[in-house]
Amino acid sequence: MQVKVVKNVLSINDSVAAENATLFKEKGILAINFMASPGAGKTTFILNTLSRLAGLLNSAVIEGDIASSIDTDKIQKGAKVPAYQINTGGSCHLDANMVRQAYRHFNLDKTDVLFIENVGNLVCPASFKLGEQMRVVISSVPEGDDKPQKYPYMFESADAVIISKADLFPYINFNLEHFKQTIAGLNPKVRFFTVSATTSEGFDDWVAYLIEQVKEAKESKR
Amino acid sequence: MQVKVVKNVLSINDSVAAENATLFKEKGILAINFMASPGAGKTTFILNTLSRLAGLLNSAVIEGDIASSIDTDKIQKGAKVPAYQINTGGSCHLDANMVRQAYRHFNLDKTDVLFIENVGNLVCPASFKLGEQMRVVISSVPEGDDKPQKYPYMFESADAVIISKADLFPYINFNLEHFKQTIAGLNPKVRFFTVSATTSEGFDDWVAYLIEQVKEAKESKR
Repeated sequence: MQVKVVKNVLSINDSVAAENATLFKEKGILAINFMASPGAGKTTFILNTLSRLAGLLNSAVIEGDIASSIDTDKIQKGAKVPAYQINTGGSCHLDANMVRQAYRHFNLDKTDVLFIENVGNLVCPASFKLGEQMRVVISSVPEGDDKPQKYPYMFESADAVIISKADLFPYINFNLEHFKQTIAGLNPKVRFFTVSATTSEGFDDWVAYLIEQVKEAKESKR
Repeated sequence: MQVKVVKNVLSINDSVAAENATLFKEKGILAINFMASPGAGKTTFILNTLSRLAGLLNSAVIEGDIASSIDTDKIQKGAKVPAYQINTGGSCHLDANMVRQAYRHFNLDKTDVLFIENVGNLVCPASFKLGEQMRVVISSVPEGDDKPQKYPYMFESADAVIISKADLFPYINFNLEHFKQTIAGLNPKVRFFTVSATTSEGFDDWVAYLIEQVKEAKESKR
């Protein structure tokens, strides 16, 4: 009984996600679902990416949190791009309908890339498609190198994994090779980027990759 | 329909949790529910506590994870105490029945304190009582000082909040006063302990408090 209801919720979500995906494709928008633990540095990562894209591409940001508008305030203060906050109440993830309610506030004809920052959580967001073309998991160095073993579903479906807070490597026992190999075992096609917002390390490679993906989304526009 | 099922799940959980609580009370056991983000340092914190309790109190540990037995392996390697791993499959939290299945593997007549390490998650575990007398939230310095605003439900019900990885303060922008004040606004009775497993800072105070709580649990034994 319970299982059936959960399945229905997921299948309703999947159909809204498919509608979102179709709309993004029609508009040539690259929509990215950013997922991570609380405090992995999602907002800081997005802010640093936005500043590098300024003048090159039109970005918009959807922020998901249980409560507060801290992240949207940061985005609006730090980058001059449209941003919209979703408060999920108690829910541990965004869903496709929340994303639809949010992007209605943007001019999608003037949007090249849509950043969707999910609720900080390594479990729930993995099960809910939002209509995104790309899934990015951010895993910070101080969280430790065992997260892929403990939360495999999150890493299995990622297109890219960002290792953030790389400036903390000297103070943390983190085996980068072990971390990457565990993920590659779950998901051989994944791309890795090691970054630090403090030192700016790694952002050039990530932004070059991102721009390539945005171009592909434009070219495959219906 | 969906809401009704969720309510039923919670009320069934509550009644199993009440049975667990009664049993722990009869046996004079202090059961503690440890909750935190992935990578906040729950297992390391428990290991450091266990080593200080060795010879003073009899401990047992239940480890909850989506997948893997990494944490139970660490506990069994690092401390000579009974430990049992629960893998939740996809579920983002432990529930009272999982805890009941786990503690059957222990001799509760020889247990003074039961450490229950929940799934790494700042959302779901807050809604599911396990029968514990004490809730401890561990929040690590690199996660940032805004977690109480973003995940208020988790902090609202905590008896103690541990600020972990205090050795990383010099490298992180973390306002400890702001962090504590936000939590105190949600939950005025909470106790704070600032610790570092690297420098051992703060463990003496925490262990003194814990031993006091274990004594109270013994004295209020039915």
